[in-house]
Amino acid sequence: MTHYFSSDFKLGILGGGQLGKMLLYDTRKFDIQTYVMDANPEAPSRLACNHFEVGSLMDYDAVMAFGKKVDVLTFEIESVNVKALEDLEALGKKVYPSAATLQKIQNKAVQKKFYESSHIPTADFDLFSDLKRLKEAVSEGNIKLPFVWKSSIGGYDGKGVSVIKSREQLSQLPDVECIAEALVDFKTEIAVIVSRSVSGEIKTYPVVEMEFHPEANQVEYVLCPARIDETLAKKARELAQLVSSKFEHVGLLAIEMFVTQSDDVLVNEVAPRPHNSGHFSIEGSFTNQFEQHLRAILDLPLGSTESKSHSVMVNLVGDEKHTGEVVYEGIEDIMAMPGVTPHIYGKRETRPFRKMGHVNIIHADLSEARAIAEVVKSKIKVISKTS
Amino acid sequence: MTHYFSSDFKLGILGGGQLGKMLLYDTRKFDIQTYVMDANPEAPSRLACNHFEVGSLMDYDAVMAFGKKVDVLTFEIESVNVKALEDLEALGKKVYPSAATLQKIQNKAVQKKFYESSHIPTADFDLFSDLKRLKEAVSEGNIKLPFVWKSSIGGYDGKGVSVIKSREQLSQLPDVECIAEALVDFKTEIAVIVSRSVSGEIKTYPVVEMEFHPEANQVEYVLCPARIDETLAKKARELAQLVSSKFEHVGLLAIEMFVTQSDDVLVNEVAPRPHNSGHFSIEGSFTNQFEQHLRAILDLPLGSTESKSHSVMVNLVGDEKHTGEVVYEGIEDIMAMPGVTPHIYGKRETRPFRKMGHVNIIHADLSEARAIAEVVKSKIKVISKTS
Repeated sequence: MTHYFSSDFKLGILGGGQLGKMLLYDTRKFDIQTYVMDANPEAPSRLACNHFEVGSLMDYDAVMAFGKKVDVLTFEIESVNVKALEDLEALGKKVYPSAATLQKIQNKAVQKKFYESSHIPTADFDLFSDLKRLKEAVSEGNIKLPFVWKSSIGGYDGKGVSVIKSREQLSQLPDVECIAEALVDFKTEIAVIVSRSVSGEIKTYPVVEMEFHPEANQVEYVLCPARIDETLAKKARELAQLVSSKFEHVGLLAIEMFVTQSDDVLVNEVAPRPHNSGHFSIEGSFTNQFEQHLRAILDLPLGSTESKSHSVMVNLVGDEKHTGEVVYEGIEDIMAMPGVTPHIYGKRETRPFRKMGHVNIIHADLSEARAIAEVVKSKIKVISKTS
Repeated sequence: MTHYFSSDFKLGILGGGQLGKMLLYDTRKFDIQTYVMDANPEAPSRLACNHFEVGSLMDYDAVMAFGKKVDVLTFEIESVNVKALEDLEALGKKVYPSAATLQKIQNKAVQKKFYESSHIPTADFDLFSDLKRLKEAVSEGNIKLPFVWKSSIGGYDGKGVSVIKSREQLSQLPDVECIAEALVDFKTEIAVIVSRSVSGEIKTYPVVEMEFHPEANQVEYVLCPARIDETLAKKARELAQLVSSKFEHVGLLAIEMFVTQSDDVLVNEVAPRPHNSGHFSIEGSFTNQFEQHLRAILDLPLGSTESKSHSVMVNLVGDEKHTGEVVYEGIEDIMAMPGVTPHIYGKRETRPFRKMGHVNIIHADLSEARAIAEVVKSKIKVISKTS
C-alpha cells in the first residue's frame, strides 16, 4: 500500500501548461509531491509543484533523467518522447497513460488506423506519406473536394487541421505525412471523458456539447450536459466506453465525437489527459477531471462524475487584433454575475486566439447558463496593454 | 483601475498555514502574484506562492520589511504585529483587514468590551489583569463556578479556553490577563461568515452549525445549512451583519454564535479571515470563502454565497495516541464514497488533536451528508507511521 498523502512519494508530470497547472491544484489539495518538467522556464506549472525543471519533452535523455526521479510519471500533453516512456516502463517505472496508449494516439494516422482495426466508427479517410501524393490523389479524382486535411503529427488547437475546398489551398499546406478525411455533415460535436484507474475501475462523465468559433476552429463554449436526447447520449457514452476499453488507457481519455444528420455517432479524435471539454467539471462536478486523473493514475477509488449543477464553459482566447502583455478587460463585470468563475492560465503574453483562460458558468438551468455565457463572451476581452 | 490578473501586482499574505495554503489555490486560479511570510520554513504555503520568506509575524521589523514589498497586505492568522500593520497603513500601504479591525479582535478582552460598547449581545463577562485577581474574585463569590476561562491573547483551536468547574482547576491556569465568562446554556453553536469588500459591498454566507468534539473542544462537524428554523437563521444573519458593520472589516469576518435555550443569539467570538466554519464552501458554495476573501480585499465584485448543495465538513485531527510522521489510514475507503473530498493540509508530523486536514461531504440531503460524515469519521485515522 503506497501512501501518497504528505509522504515521500513523487508524481512526475511532463508538461507545465494550463492543464498541468490545474492538476497541481489537486496535488496540493491532497499534498502529493510533484515534479514538473517543461521547456519553458515561465510555464504556468512552475509554481505549486515541489520541483520544477526546464527540459524538452521530446528529448529522450531529458525525459529519461526526469522519469528516473519520480515514482509515477504522467503527462499533460501528447508531444512527449514515447521511446523514453517505453524505456522507463522497461526499467519498472509506472507510466500512466502508458507508452503503448500514447503511441496509438500521438500520430493521427496511427490513431485513425487503430479505429479502423478496432471497428470504431469514424469518418472515412486516406493516408498520404507526403504532400505530393495527396496532390496526385486529388488530381486523379481519388480524393474529392471538399475534404479535411490533418497533419499526422503536431496538430493542436486548430493547428494542423484545414478544410480544403479548392485545389489552390493544397499548395499552402506543409509537406508532411497527412490524412484526407471525409467532411462529416454533422449536427453537433460532443465529447465524453472516460476515467479508468490502474485497477480497471471505469467512470464516465456526462456527454458535453462543443460549440466552435467559426474562424479560429477552436471550441468557444462547452455545455454540460449536451442538448441531445437520452438515446443519443446513451449511444455516445457507450461508444466512448468502447473506445476507452480498446485503448486500455489509465487516466482520462477525452473522446471527441460527431453526431451526424442521421444520428450516427463517429469518433473524431481522442486525448489521453485532462481536456478542455472537461473544464466545466472544476465547478460543475462532484469530482473535477484533474482530481479524477490523479485518482486514476494513483489507483485510488474514482470519484463521482455526476454534476452538482448544469454548466457552460467559455474559452478565453486572445483577441485577434492583440499581441503583447495581457490585460483582461471587463473581468470585473463578469465576476459580478452569480455562478461565474474565471480561470486565468497565467500566460503573460497574449496572441490572436491563444488560449489564455476559461470561464465556468454554473446554473440550475442550462439555457440560462448558455445565455450568461454569451454575455460573458461579449463583456470580457483578452487584449494587450499597449495597442 | 488595478489589473490583478497575470500582472505585476503583488498580494502579501502574513502566515503560511492551511488557510494561506487554500487561499493560494484561488490566487493561482486568478494568476495573482503572491508573497508569503511564515516563521516555519516548511509551512504549507511555501509552495504555490510566487515568493516565500521565513520571518516571525510578531516581529515588527520583519512585518514592516515584508509589507513594503507588496501592494496589498492580508493575513491568515490573527497573531500578527499590529503596530507594523498600522505603520504600513500610515505609509499608504493597503492592509485588509485593517490594523484597527485586527486590534479589536486580537485581544479577547478588547473584543468583549467592544461587543459591550457596541450593544452586541454576548455572554456576561469580567476581566482580570492576572490570575491572582481572578482567584480573589472566585474566593469572594463575585465569580460563581462553573464559568468559562479565556486567556486574553493567544487562544486558538481550543487552547486558551477552559471550563472551570472547581477551585482546584484555578491553580492549573497560567498567570495571564483573562476573562471569566458566564457559561451559556446553549442549544447549539452556529456561525456566519460575512464578506465585505473595500467598496463596502456585503454578502453573507448561510448559517452553519458546529458540532464540537467533547474532549478536544474543537469543531468536529460543520453542517451547512444549520438545522435551525428560518426565523432563527434570519436573526443570526442579521446579528452577524450588525457585528460586521461595527467592525467595519474588509475581507471575511467569521462570527461564532451561541443559540440559547430561549432562542437568543449571543456572539461568542469572531475571526477576520477565512475560517474553519467556511471550509464547506470549497465544494459546497458557488464562491468559496477563499476566493471571496480575495474578491473582498482586492475590491472585486463579491461572488454568490449561495450553496450548490448541502454539505457537512469533518475536521481531520491527529489521533490522540499518535505523534510523528503522519499516515492517513483509511483515506482510500472514504474516497470511494460519492461526494466525499479530503483536503490534506500538508503537515508531515501529526500530534494529538492537531488539525491535519478536513473532509467535505456534498449531498442533496443534509441528513444523508451528516450520516456519511459519521462513517467518514469512523473510517479515517490520522496516525503516525511507527507506533
